[in-house]
Amino acid sequence: MSFDPSTLKYNDAGLIPAIAQDATSGEVLMMAWMNADAVAKTLATGQVTYWSRSRQSFWIKGETSGHRQELVDFSIDCDRDCLLVRVNQTGAACHTGRRTCFYTDVVDGVEIVTQAPLAG
Amino acid sequence: MSFDPSTLKYNDAGLIPAIAQDATSGEVLMMAWMNADAVAKTLATGQVTYWSRSRQSFWIKGETSGHRQELVDFSIDCDRDCLLVRVNQTGAACHTGRRTCFYTDVVDGVEIVTQAPLAG
Repeated sequence: MSFDPSTLKYNDAGLIPAIAQDATSGEVLMMAWMNADAVAKTLATGQVTYWSRSRQSFWIKGETSGHRQELVDFSIDCDRDCLLVRVNQTGAACHTGRRTCFYTDVVDGVEIVTQAPLAG
Repeated sequence: MSFDPSTLKYNDAGLIPAIAQDATSGEVLMMAWMNADAVAKTLATGQVTYWSRSRQSFWIKGETSGHRQELVDFSIDCDRDCLLVRVNQTGAACHTGRRTCFYTDVVDGVEIVTQAPLAG
């Protein structure tokens, strides 16, 4: 079946959550949001492109930082209301300089930071 | 730092997205939503518990189907507005009987179903 981004289910703001996973390590890197045009751009360019809710503009991941996400696989969930993109991540996915945004674990009721920012 | 579920950032409906990942294979299984009480229940019981938006009630994953998610790791992202739970998944995570909800890939502009329902 030919894929049409308009057939996905978007929230009231016209957005769908997209989970980015490292295609090599399997690490979950981040979750951000796409609108239908960002979905289309991601597929057309192979560069993962989100919609920035704070800036209200396209956010080509890594355009400024160089920490790009090259698309490897693009998956839709059963309800068509969530996306999974497997990527080749250059450098840090997180704006804090860490490889992934999920660097805080809750262990026995206490928050523990599990990763340091990447060197350089 | 002691963890307090009320310090997470919830959307206007009081919910936060939670990504479930197979702790062994690294496969991303599903994404669903938790409220603060579901977060607390998940941590207290070790059984991943979501908030069902359709039923407006707690959803102890697998309570009916037996396809439970035993919590292994609980992580918070940098913005505190998304969760990652690594789990031991019994059987299918997806209501279609597939191991994961992300069984549809977009390849060269065409949707391809990549997984069959589990046997049995």
